[in-house]
Amino acid sequence: MLLYWYETTAADFAFADAVGVLSIGSCEQHGDYLPVGTDGLIGWRLVQAAAERAESPVLLLPPQQVGYSPHHRAFPGCLTLSQETMFRYLLELCQCAFDNGLTRLLLVNSHGGNQSCLQTVVNELGARYDYRPLLVRYWDLIADTAAERRSSGSGGMGHAGEFETSVMQYLYPELVRPERFGQRPAAAGNRYHSPDLFARNAVYQYKPFQEYDRRGNVGQPQLASAEKGEAFFLAAADQLAKLIDFYRHNRF
Amino acid sequence: MLLYWYETTAADFAFADAVGVLSIGSCEQHGDYLPVGTDGLIGWRLVQAAAERAESPVLLLPPQQVGYSPHHRAFPGCLTLSQETMFRYLLELCQCAFDNGLTRLLLVNSHGGNQSCLQTVVNELGARYDYRPLLVRYWDLIADTAAERRSSGSGGMGHAGEFETSVMQYLYPELVRPERFGQRPAAAGNRYHSPDLFARNAVYQYKPFQEYDRRGNVGQPQLASAEKGEAFFLAAADQLAKLIDFYRHNRF
Amino acid sequence: MLLYWYETTAADFAFADAVGVLSIGSCEQHGDYLPVGTDGLIGWRLVQAAAERAESPVLLLPPQQVGYSPHHRAFPGCLTLSQETMFRYLLELCQCAFDNGLTRLLLVNSHGGNQSCLQTVVNELGARYDYRPLLVRYWDLIADTAAERRSSGSGGMGHAGEFETSVMQYLYPELVRPERFGQRPAAAGNRYHSPDLFARNAVYQYKPFQEYDRRGNVGQPQLASAEKGEAFFLAAADQLAKLIDFYRHNRF
Amino acid sequence: MLLYWYETTAADFAFADAVGVLSIGSCEQHGDYLPVGTDGLIGWRLVQAAAERAESPVLLLPPQQVGYSPHHRAFPGCLTLSQETMFRYLLELCQCAFDNGLTRLLLVNSHGGNQSCLQTVVNELGARYDYRPLLVRYWDLIADTAAERRSSGSGGMGHAGEFETSVMQYLYPELVRPERFGQRPAAAGNRYHSPDLFARNAVYQYKPFQEYDRRGNVGQPQLASAEKGEAFFLAAADQLAKLIDFYRHNRF
Amino acid sequence: MLLYWYETTAADFAFADAVGVLSIGSCEQHGDYLPVGTDGLIGWRLVQAAAERAESPVLLLPPQQVGYSPHHRAFPGCLTLSQETMFRYLLELCQCAFDNGLTRLLLVNSHGGNQSCLQTVVNELGARYDYRPLLVRYWDLIADTAAERRSSGSGGMGHAGEFETSVMQYLYPELVRPERFGQRPAAAGNRYHSPDLFARNAVYQYKPFQEYDRRGNVGQPQLASAEKGEAFFLAAADQLAKLIDFYRHNRF
Amino acid sequence: MLLYWYETTAADFAFADAVGVLSIGSCEQHGDYLPVGTDGLIGWRLVQAAAERAESPVLLLPPQQVGYSPHHRAFPGCLTLSQETMFRYLLELCQCAFDNGLTRLLLVNSHGGNQSCLQTVVNELGARYDYRPLLVRYWDLIADTAAERRSSGSGGMGHAGEFETSVMQYLYPELVRPERFGQRPAAAGNRYHSPDLFARNAVYQYKPFQEYDRRGNVGQPQLASAEKGEAFFLAAADQLAKLIDFYRHNRF
Repeated sequence: MLLYWYETTAADFAFADAVGVLSIGSCEQHGDYLPVGTDGLIGWRLVQAAAERAESPVLLLPPQQVGYSPHHRAFPGCLTLSQETMFRYLLELCQCAFDNGLTRLLLVNSHGGNQSCLQTVVNELGARYDYRPLLVRYWDLIADTAAERRSSGSGGMGHAGEFETSVMQYLYPELVRPERFGQRPAAAGNRYHSPDLFARNAVYQYKPFQEYDRRGNVGQPQLASAEKGEAFFLAAADQLAKLIDFYRHNRF
Repeated sequence: MLLYWYETTAADFAFADAVGVLSIGSCEQHGDYLPVGTDGLIGWRLVQAAAERAESPVLLLPPQQVGYSPHHRAFPGCLTLSQETMFRYLLELCQCAFDNGLTRLLLVNSHGGNQSCLQTVVNELGARYDYRPLLVRYWDLIADTAAERRSSGSGGMGHAGEFETSVMQYLYPELVRPERFGQRPAAAGNRYHSPDLFARNAVYQYKPFQEYDRRGNVGQPQLASAEKGEAFFLAAADQLAKLIDFYRHNRF
Repeated sequence: MLLYWYETTAADFAFADAVGVLSIGSCEQHGDYLPVGTDGLIGWRLVQAAAERAESPVLLLPPQQVGYSPHHRAFPGCLTLSQETMFRYLLELCQCAFDNGLTRLLLVNSHGGNQSCLQTVVNELGARYDYRPLLVRYWDLIADTAAERRSSGSGGMGHAGEFETSVMQYLYPELVRPERFGQRPAAAGNRYHSPDLFARNAVYQYKPFQEYDRRGNVGQPQLASAEKGEAFFLAAADQLAKLIDFYRHNRF
Repeated sequence: MLLYWYETTAADFAFADAVGVLSIGSCEQHGDYLPVGTDGLIGWRLVQAAAERAESPVLLLPPQQVGYSPHHRAFPGCLTLSQETMFRYLLELCQCAFDNGLTRLLLVNSHGGNQSCLQTVVNELGARYDYRPLLVRYWDLIADTAAERRSSGSGGMGHAGEFETSVMQYLYPELVRPERFGQRPAAAGNRYHSPDLFARNAVYQYKPFQEYDRRGNVGQPQLASAEKGEAFFLAAADQLAKLIDFYRHNRF
Repeated sequence: MLLYWYETTAADFAFADAVGVLSIGSCEQHGDYLPVGTDGLIGWRLVQAAAERAESPVLLLPPQQVGYSPHHRAFPGCLTLSQETMFRYLLELCQCAFDNGLTRLLLVNSHGGNQSCLQTVVNELGARYDYRPLLVRYWDLIADTAAERRSSGSGGMGHAGEFETSVMQYLYPELVRPERFGQRPAAAGNRYHSPDLFARNAVYQYKPFQEYDRRGNVGQPQLASAEKGEAFFLAAADQLAKLIDFYRHNRF
Repeated sequence: MLLYWYETTAADFAFADAVGVLSIGSCEQHGDYLPVGTDGLIGWRLVQAAAERAESPVLLLPPQQVGYSPHHRAFPGCLTLSQETMFRYLLELCQCAFDNGLTRLLLVNSHGGNQSCLQTVVNELGARYDYRPLLVRYWDLIADTAAERRSSGSGGMGHAGEFETSVMQYLYPELVRPERFGQRPAAAGNRYHSPDLFARNAVYQYKPFQEYDRRGNVGQPQLASAEKGEAFFLAAADQLAKLIDFYRHNRF
């Protein structure tokens, strides 16, 4: 059941039973064919779709549309926070949610670069409150679907690659520029690390994206399709709704 | 000319000629008849309307929908930042805009509680960059219109009063609950300070809003109307568009 | 009734009934004819004069003689804090006052550049304590007197202009160098902003003062006189004393 | 080739060719049968063993023996930093290494709770320097060996479980108290999260360890053996040496 | 040669040849017989006297009248900063002095509790600039005179003891309340630490002053005299003037 | 009685009766003949030796092997923290110790550059807790022994001089390079300041060590001997043990 925090009057809140959901996106280059707001646009649509599917009352906080993206700042249009500021900002925001009486809070991340900072936010909240906020990077919920439907090999589903491009073609076709896709290679990576969204990496690194590709993308947009995007998005919305309902009834 | 930062691809930005506009709202009680997101909802609609009216290319940054509102935290639904975090957050955001090559940045504030912090942000930006970011509290642009059209006396156009309620009735009638307006008094204030939006006060103070009214509003929603709201909103959009065009052609 | 915090023994404090007053000045160029300490010198004399005139017991905290002045740092003699440090510093100072049992605290600002930061201090104190600290920029108390007595038009009473120069000629004639006044123009400003102390501006900006004038002043010292300075100062002292007494007996 | 930073004279450093390695441990309860320093003791021994095996010159920085462990503070002996302080501390330490001329820096983490904060450190270093520091959680290098040799099922190799206890029995048998092992269950987890070291979890959470077990452990020490510990440790040392040599010759 | 920073116009500064001097005092109980501002009152008079005696041009910065005094906060009238804020505040202030072109800066401390923080300020300034700011605790310059003239034994010249009381009787007799002196004991200390101003202690500790004496003083005011105070003050002014002149001509 | 925090299980701690001891060293050049870890190597051995000699149970915290050393950063091998980070780091570490139930905590400093920051840590701890943490710079305990046994005059026992070199020759002869000693002069200092470890200085300053000597040392290693080192070390261990036992039985 979808509820918007922002549209509720102070008199009409009912926190005790609800699951709060915060979508965290970002703003940085997604090649020359996807808008810089891709991650936040997807994330916000996803949490709305999941909330509609969930049985639980889901209270959507105002979405966070700027994240941690210095690895993209060599390209135009990048808005990025420092991790320290992002940590404090989200910590204060989530504390407000808890201080209002909410006891279940799910952070839905749609930008890889945010993940480490968001984990530290969850740690800090967990250490201060007797609640268990959760963090999920949405594609981690649909690794199976992605594996089944992907056309690209490893390295084809990275930043602005087959996966994200498909989802955008499904959700926002008017914002996608397929004529710029061209033929792009999958990103190679090495034996310890691949930038594919679904890789399991032995090491953690930071890499400015101009080193992957001079145009900024990682992966193969030319293999994307709105049809695949629909499959990915709907699977993610379903899984996220299931997680929300599970969370409401189980202590983590 | 309206442009959305978030919807632009990295390859399509043209910063040099544009005026960047950042809408800063907030999230806190607006009585029991307006949604907590009132300020941000109005602000975001306003900058869109002004951008459409302006001759200059106007690049809208993702709107800031949470602000500084601890004076409302006794009521449900309040999301508030500390001033220190808000300062750092907006500073980093605006620095990104400048670092991208934008040279004109206008902060449009639609929540009184944000103003002091936003002034410190403008100071810091001005001290670090050779640009002149501007800050405007939107109602300061239409003091004349407000004076002409208001039905309430002094103290009737405060927080969630005749003015804001009118604008919400015009923009978001479905989110307004007129049946809860009742008959409310204007806020008295004293010889040094009035909480009316259009008062010119000799002193600066901080006051938790439960001290104005146990339901949180300041002013008289029962005097509001969608018609007045339309007049206020259109005047503000016009004036803001004029300011944007003036700013584009004149160094402050 | 004037009391100096610094000169009192620990055994002789009586906080409960007193109004605490903190004068905040600054240290930056005031043209080549006024000392850099102009704002703090005026402020400190003013709070002493007001305390003498007030019926309430007035406890003067040690004056703050350095403020926020980066817009003057292109000129010699500038001492300036960052806003973040000034915020923390004054917050801690005012907290000590409250923690000692004082319940009324009035910040008297005599430097325009300080105002935004001081407002954030008042906000933070108000959010932490159940007291209502007040902030006043002293000239806001005597807009009428200034309008009546000024010789200059708009833009003549800015930084080191007719107003401040007059007050310094009254209070510290030995520190003023009239032979350097020359004939200076009023500052023009634009339709949205004027740097005159008594202007009501629609927008907020930050501007390095070398952009107003290569010598740093804004306004017309050649129109100043000790006689006018006396009128301004005495009016301000009277009004400030009245505010103190009103504050003592009324909850803001 | 093993080199100790601490034991080298200023005149004898040769940074350009070396791989710097920083071991980060922690200090918190490991049940009642392992010492609180377990993670740091293992980590420090491991980086020494790997350095000896590597062909590259390996410069060991002084080990970091305190980490992020608030989830263990309900038990005696916990020393923990805040994430903010740990971030700043390690950032400054690693910056010194880079500023000395080192270009390759490998952070070896031996405590799960540190990982998020360490990732933010790697991000920040990567964003500031044109180097690629790496972070590895040592057990991520030997998932295969662990899977082959483990006796416990999922949930048996968590904090102070079969894995860590085995390694301690191999390295520091005198510090292990097998008589206190008893018969302990594997930790169940749920469909989204398991505390097993080798689980791949869909969600991220923070959980105080008294909620796993009143004695603080997660997993089954009674299944541990020095023989398995030797296998785990030697595999980790080999893999870490290989990673070091790979890192020296390849840009990540 | 005495020059006041605050009273100089921007056009009249001559930094290159001057020694900048900053007096740092404090504000906390000095028993029931000395004012809370004792340290700052003495310090400010002292740097004026030394500047008059010095051959060098001495530029006095606005005095710092609040310091670090939490060990006195159990008594009325205490104003204290945190060390972190004091560090940042003084760092910024001193940086302004250096950024103005001053190359010699002497911090004169008249409150024991400030010393550690001031040392960290000197460290930070020294690490950032190629200048050598100096810090002196004024009584360290006149250990010989104090030893010759003191009537009390060890422990008699602590906080508000024979030494400080004498100086205040010389400088500000109207602020001293001798009728409250009574007969007070010297503070004993132990083999590792004595609170006497002139003790050389093997260990460093922090001690709230109510643990020395319920009235807050350490030492014996009843042994003080204005005559001794004159001797102490004049010796300190002479020694400080000598240090200033030595500093001007020698690189530390 | 020596106990290692790190090697104790959570079940075996007994804080109430113990004295906690934290050794704080550093990592910076000690000439070309001593390792960069000299201070931490000495400090850690010293606290172990003292703990063995003490009658009290002594709980050794993990040693801090990096300190504040920017005055050495012109030389290779320097690892240094900022004072702000060191302050926060040690504050959090010591707070954990107190929060565990320890009531006596002794900080043993073996690097001069750390002292100011450590004093601020002791201040902050003392202001927050009702305990009396102590700080000792170890050589301050054996001024007599040093005076008796030293061969050098004033300025011969500075950084990496006769004193520290002797102790290292006793403790770690394999890490000392006597063939590089040569004939080095004592450091002159001036009438206000000498860099000799045992000087009592009237002023405090910060000085980059390349200004003392292009090789970084202060003092005369060629006068060192393992025999003297043994005398210094054993005297320090004895005195430190005595201090520990005194501290256990007396409130400071």
